[in-house]
Amino acid sequence: CIAPDAATRAGMLDTVRFDATGLVAAIAQQHDTGEVLMLAWMNRAALDETLRTGRVCYYSRSRNALWRKGETSGQVQTLVEARLDCDRDAVLLLVDQTGVACHTGRRSCFFNAMRPEGLVETSAPLVAADTLYGRG
Amino acid sequence: CIAPDAATRAGMLDTVRFDATGLVAAIAQQHDTGEVLMLAWMNRAALDETLRTGRVCYYSRSRNALWRKGETSGQVQTLVEARLDCDRDAVLLLVDQTGVACHTGRRSCFFNAMRPEGLVETSAPLVAADTLYGRG
Repeated sequence: CIAPDAATRAGMLDTVRFDATGLVAAIAQQHDTGEVLMLAWMNRAALDETLRTGRVCYYSRSRNALWRKGETSGQVQTLVEARLDCDRDAVLLLVDQTGVACHTGRRSCFFNAMRPEGLVETSAPLVAADTLYGRG
Repeated sequence: CIAPDAATRAGMLDTVRFDATGLVAAIAQQHDTGEVLMLAWMNRAALDETLRTGRVCYYSRSRNALWRKGETSGQVQTLVEARLDCDRDAVLLLVDQTGVACHTGRRSCFFNAMRPEGLVETSAPLVAADTLYGRG
């Protein structure tokens, strides 16, 4: 992965339309299978770090801090390509997910299907959350 | 497509964590190819209508109104399945997209790749925007 240099990153980041709180929605998609893994948020620093390092870094709205995905769990996301949408206010991250994206131990966070009979889980955890976060 | 009845829809919608402005982010993904088409927003009424009718309806933040996707352009999205994420604050819509999702005439809105050399368009319009919106 060749990172854009600082000037090129700054030029691209200047075109992103961050919201009033300085954030943009980011979708992570497994680059080869097409599975949508999760939706999270990035501020300018998070997107800059992601482009610079090739490791996905979000912004945690609950912790108000940069969130280097996998820092605790080891379930990192390696960036393949970041794409802005037509309005420049959303980001699609094509990634290579190590292990599982979801804190519940599932590959994808989107496992609650809204079916005629109500919510149905479409997948089971592949790994226990306690194992992921070193509490096992 | 069998729609959940009103009580089942209400029960599922009660679990969705809409934000302070009453909205939730919604990702539209082509159900069979896995292509991520767009990211938009839904309020409770939009998600309820989508589940009830099987046609995707968003909430337009610029127009402050329900946005029945394709109402003007004909580029409708037929719902295959809606899925909530682990935190219940994001929705993944598996859809069958008629024509193109993007107002620029591209299949997907995510066409601005952030490359080492700067922003690069990954696709060209399949149809002119003027044609889509009856100005052609």
